[in-house]
Amino acid sequence: MQKMNLKKGRVIVFTFCIAIGIMSCSNKKEEQIDNMIFKKGEKITNNNFTGEVWLNNLAQADSINQNAVGSVTFEPGARTKWHSHPAGQIILALDGVGYYQEKGSPKIMVNKGDVIKCPANIAHWHGASVDAKFVQVAITGREKGETVWLEQVSDVEYSK
Amino acid sequence: MQKMNLKKGRVIVFTFCIAIGIMSCSNKKEEQIDNMIFKKGEKITNNNFTGEVWLNNLAQADSINQNAVGSVTFEPGARTKWHSHPAGQIILALDGVGYYQEKGSPKIMVNKGDVIKCPANIAHWHGASVDAKFVQVAITGREKGETVWLEQVSDVEYSK
Repeated sequence: MQKMNLKKGRVIVFTFCIAIGIMSCSNKKEEQIDNMIFKKGEKITNNNFTGEVWLNNLAQADSINQNAVGSVTFEPGARTKWHSHPAGQIILALDGVGYYQEKGSPKIMVNKGDVIKCPANIAHWHGASVDAKFVQVAITGREKGETVWLEQVSDVEYSK
Repeated sequence: MQKMNLKKGRVIVFTFCIAIGIMSCSNKKEEQIDNMIFKKGEKITNNNFTGEVWLNNLAQADSINQNAVGSVTFEPGARTKWHSHPAGQIILALDGVGYYQEKGSPKIMVNKGDVIKCPANIAHWHGASVDAKFVQVAITGREKGETVWLEQVSDVEYSK
């Protein structure tokens, strides 16, 4: 009887340990999701994007500092249209896995911590990968005019 | 004797649980430090800063896109000199706790996710708080000239 109690005691405490372990893991997952630096902002409703994309305007351009800075969250599969910027753009990859492609060049994969400098007036697109969302900060100078939006990135182009 | 074993068994497993808990905590701390998006880069050795400051140049200005973008890590207590930017600056707070002050205004606390737009030609300083490091991305337009460096931020000014 005492031996049974000993075993039972150990089983209870061991189960408790496992439970703590599992809770700790699930907490970590939640932290990872909640650990975003900037809020997702508002869902983009214009037709310059394919799929679900969110924008948080971090800084607006003004007459002296003409940079617009935004945090953009692309859900898996979502992307911009082909487009170009008269003064170029700098993209900082904050989280997830993304794609970036300039016209005439192969699509490249973009990971957290990568930095891309899109040259001025070069058609390109960016977005999330198939399976993972992509969070980026986009720094766009407005001093030479607004973004020029071109055609949609087709599913064939996206998948290449 | 059996009772002693029962207690001993529980004590051993309980101690094991506590050990796992402590290890899990210390792992989380390491993750937090290693979870930086951009590398710290190189230690700044010029005298425009007080304390230990690291710079990772993410994008250099060029003749068309004249933005310089850098990730700056201030160790606790470290800060810039007073300075100003002819085209202003945008600061994105990525991690830790920082301070920001414009001449004639009180010092404000800056937390992860905060965005500051330093107006053009306004003397200001930024840096880490006393106890925590501060990681920021600085976006600085070079189109109207370089940063103008002024006097050091004294310990009295820093502590106010």
